[in-house]
Amino acid sequence: MLLRRISPLLSGLQIPNRLAARMPGSCPQACVAWASSCLYSKDTSSSGSGANSRNSTSCQRWAYTTTGALLGLGSILLYRSREQKLAEDNQESASGSHMVPPSSSDLKSSVPRSYPVYTLKEVQHHRTLADGIWVTLGKDVFDITEFVDLHPGGNRILLAAGGSLEPFWAMYGVHNQKHVIEILSAYKIGELSPEEQAAGPADLSDPYAQDPPRHPALKVNSMKPFNAEPPAEMLTEAYITPNAFFFKRNHLPVPRLDPASYRLEVGGRMGSPSLFLSLEELKTHFPRHEVMATLQCAGNRRSEMNAVKPVKGLDWGIAAIGNAKWAGAQLRDVLVAAGYKEGEAGALHVQFEGLDRDLAGTGYGASIPYHIAMSSDHDVLLVYEMNGEELPLDHGFPLRVIVPGVVGARNVKWLGRILVSTEESQSHWQQNDYKGFSPSVDWDTVDFSVSPAIQELPVQSAITDPQPGTLVAGEDGKITVKGYAWSGGGREVVRVDVSLDGGSTWHVANLTGEKQTPGRAWAWKLWTLTTPLPAERTELEILCKAVDSSYNVQPDTVAPIWNLRGVLSNAWHRVCVSVMKD
Amino acid sequence: MLLRRISPLLSGLQIPNRLAARMPGSCPQACVAWASSCLYSKDTSSSGSGANSRNSTSCQRWAYTTTGALLGLGSILLYRSREQKLAEDNQESASGSHMVPPSSSDLKSSVPRSYPVYTLKEVQHHRTLADGIWVTLGKDVFDITEFVDLHPGGNRILLAAGGSLEPFWAMYGVHNQKHVIEILSAYKIGELSPEEQAAGPADLSDPYAQDPPRHPALKVNSMKPFNAEPPAEMLTEAYITPNAFFFKRNHLPVPRLDPASYRLEVGGRMGSPSLFLSLEELKTHFPRHEVMATLQCAGNRRSEMNAVKPVKGLDWGIAAIGNAKWAGAQLRDVLVAAGYKEGEAGALHVQFEGLDRDLAGTGYGASIPYHIAMSSDHDVLLVYEMNGEELPLDHGFPLRVIVPGVVGARNVKWLGRILVSTEESQSHWQQNDYKGFSPSVDWDTVDFSVSPAIQELPVQSAITDPQPGTLVAGEDGKITVKGYAWSGGGREVVRVDVSLDGGSTWHVANLTGEKQTPGRAWAWKLWTLTTPLPAERTELEILCKAVDSSYNVQPDTVAPIWNLRGVLSNAWHRVCVSVMKD
Repeated sequence: MLLRRISPLLSGLQIPNRLAARMPGSCPQACVAWASSCLYSKDTSSSGSGANSRNSTSCQRWAYTTTGALLGLGSILLYRSREQKLAEDNQESASGSHMVPPSSSDLKSSVPRSYPVYTLKEVQHHRTLADGIWVTLGKDVFDITEFVDLHPGGNRILLAAGGSLEPFWAMYGVHNQKHVIEILSAYKIGELSPEEQAAGPADLSDPYAQDPPRHPALKVNSMKPFNAEPPAEMLTEAYITPNAFFFKRNHLPVPRLDPASYRLEVGGRMGSPSLFLSLEELKTHFPRHEVMATLQCAGNRRSEMNAVKPVKGLDWGIAAIGNAKWAGAQLRDVLVAAGYKEGEAGALHVQFEGLDRDLAGTGYGASIPYHIAMSSDHDVLLVYEMNGEELPLDHGFPLRVIVPGVVGARNVKWLGRILVSTEESQSHWQQNDYKGFSPSVDWDTVDFSVSPAIQELPVQSAITDPQPGTLVAGEDGKITVKGYAWSGGGREVVRVDVSLDGGSTWHVANLTGEKQTPGRAWAWKLWTLTTPLPAERTELEILCKAVDSSYNVQPDTVAPIWNLRGVLSNAWHRVCVSVMKD
Repeated sequence: MLLRRISPLLSGLQIPNRLAARMPGSCPQACVAWASSCLYSKDTSSSGSGANSRNSTSCQRWAYTTTGALLGLGSILLYRSREQKLAEDNQESASGSHMVPPSSSDLKSSVPRSYPVYTLKEVQHHRTLADGIWVTLGKDVFDITEFVDLHPGGNRILLAAGGSLEPFWAMYGVHNQKHVIEILSAYKIGELSPEEQAAGPADLSDPYAQDPPRHPALKVNSMKPFNAEPPAEMLTEAYITPNAFFFKRNHLPVPRLDPASYRLEVGGRMGSPSLFLSLEELKTHFPRHEVMATLQCAGNRRSEMNAVKPVKGLDWGIAAIGNAKWAGAQLRDVLVAAGYKEGEAGALHVQFEGLDRDLAGTGYGASIPYHIAMSSDHDVLLVYEMNGEELPLDHGFPLRVIVPGVVGARNVKWLGRILVSTEESQSHWQQNDYKGFSPSVDWDTVDFSVSPAIQELPVQSAITDPQPGTLVAGEDGKITVKGYAWSGGGREVVRVDVSLDGGSTWHVANLTGEKQTPGRAWAWKLWTLTTPLPAERTELEILCKAVDSSYNVQPDTVAPIWNLRGVLSNAWHRVCVSVMKD
């Protein structure tokens, strides 16, 4: 039914070949899948409507979304309040068009006026109160410096400083209302140059041309390969991180694999022939297992190490981590089907080869210890589902490995081959990357062979709210601090201590999270602390530190764990804020 | 030679049959063994004297001790400070009597006063706060109702309510000090009737009388129960800690168990009868397993927490840790013999009950998670051999459990019974002790139910050489620093960083240790760093910090991990030394 509703809309659109080609399966289904990933985002505005109206609203909404997204602005429509939507439905009926999203210029003063033209680069230079805060919406440029203090959402508006409002409005749908756009229009100072308004089709020879669409709210650390994290405060809005907002850490272009012809190769035991398994066989010949597990990039919080002394690597903030429910076949079952048993002589490592390849044809690779792979207690899965949806393209469609409690880098995506070996993976990423070193080691002295490849990660926590540098206002004289905490190896987080005074005194935060089996606590805890604002203070240095079930704690400071690759950054997280006076 | 020295002294004593009977082996040797145990009580004052004088002092001391113990109050003598002891020696010489223990009345106001006379029956009626709490010591009766709240040991004082303090003071030797007796004398309300005084001493036998002899090099933190650690530098002299130098951490008197009649009880599955296993059966019916494992007390390095803010607990230095090769039956095999299997419904914990008991008959107890107990990967053993020798008395003869990677407190000694349960051990030590808390928690706010019982310990390291406050002389301008490093849960120590300048710069130490199976690295690493002495420095602040295979690290400082019980003290170890000038 959903498909029937979409088809007429889609038929009226010119879908670029590039996009059509990259969608898995037939085009309409792909659009549905993609649009539904947008729907998955938080939309509290429609939660009050009944089931029927919600259904029809949803259908219309995703129709807008599909259309709008293809135009690059569709998600704005996604979040409009019901009232506004109904009003616009009427307008649209009258005009006979569903295709044109509202533009801020529609809402401007009726007197035509000419504006200066700016480049995106010029806009990007205006990111601070000192330089002025500029943002864009559609083709329009606004100087909202004076508005920052008036913004009902506080300093969060600064997330968009020097860039486009669209991704944030897509996330915080409350903005998509006439009166908001009217307010904004008062701050218009110019327009983007026509070239930048109309970006042409991408270069089809680009190896990244088939990369999937992503949610515009993600903060991109690298486009090619795509590496992006959500705004940190989104992490603590839900225990399960929505797929669209789950951090993406690709090393290479996303391969487009046909699920019908896909085969997983499992290297045979003692030189016997490999086992080849179709996706269908993986789904039907092996019991389906589910595991709730948090995945963290080794480079999460690298920016804090970078601040101590520059490191090599993407400048991740604190959001290269997410929590999801994964489903698939247990790796152990597949290995047993290939003839392996526990305590196999010479079986020390299980290597995974990805189907994402560089121009020389070298694929991503990693390995984990054999005893982890073979243990049911470690819940290692060959995953085809993420949070109840088909595994997304950016997360390894059609199949990836999930090794709970172990660094993201070993959770190989677009999995092509599994090999049991006496050796670790010989890939660059296992041998010469993703290892920890003493702060005394630099690029002249480093010897990658002396450090073990990172597997289980150490205990971690971070503050997602308030944001650094913001002005906080107490409610009833109290402040609320939020964050996440997690540890590797199935070690449950048992306590989070929070300080508002730079570590002189501590408060114990409230933890929330699903109950997990002892020793198999793969998922994070979210935490909240609400406590009186310290009297007489105008500045707060907020800290958090977590304790796991082995009573491991985070180190106090970053410099002594600094390492040249900027991995394993798990010192106390520090956020400095100002306190609003009464 | 020792025997020859002792014999004349012993010959002058009447040893009651009761005591003689309980001594293993023939009487003289037993007395030697027993008396020599007294020789090793805490007496730093004699450490400066030569070997001869120490021997003779010791002989006199144990003579006092033996005599005193037979009168039921001997341990009073044992704990007096050297000053007090010398003063009393003089008094005793003057009076010609060694037989009269100090009485509380000796320490009262010098003004004679007459007191009401009470019967033992009257005393026994005062056992509640409502009736008043009365106790006796010698011939004196005290009403300590008002003191209960002030008692440093809390409500445990109520164990003596309505009766004599002697047995409890004998067990908790810390009471036998002048100031304690002075405090008590303020509560005196009467004296026992002369008939009951004349009934002769009650059964005042020292429950610790059967404790075994210990090596005199041990630094004693508490005599009764016996708690002692070796000099720190001994730890790094050998990879395997000799049994005599392995730290002793007893909670109660050492029970003397007859290996011939000893039976281990293993609670039956689903209410079926218990399995009883003799030592011989444990040795011959189950495969013998060996495991090299480091054992660490939860309170190791407590003295560093005590220095931040006083905590409750024995003031351990850095040597409440040791490494040994243990041999015994695998716990898993014994549980399987008792009918248990993996994934048993309702089997969540395995409880261990020790045969060391307090006066109320309550034994030491602890538990570990069932999945750890049942996993061959965790190498949990029922141990009858330590470093190739029969398990020593202080380490649990004839049988103890060794849970590698887990805090010492769960490695129950003198093992009497094993129970599989849905619940953890309900013992004091599992429920209301050996747990970690935030530094913000004090004895007024602590809720033991909110923290998990310590099992796996966090990563740890310490510097054994040089010693704090010493003067170091470089060899060829170089300094050598030594220490140990270990982590719980089978996580191997992969690196130790050492700083000579308080943490500004770091050096990587050389690690030594036996190769272990990944994920089952139960034994420590010893480490050494030889590096040029920093030029121009007269003082060095030497630090060490270890990294384990999960890349967990030690926290920088002690205060943020301070907790009211002083457990889990694993901040960077800091040793300040002076540099000898050329």
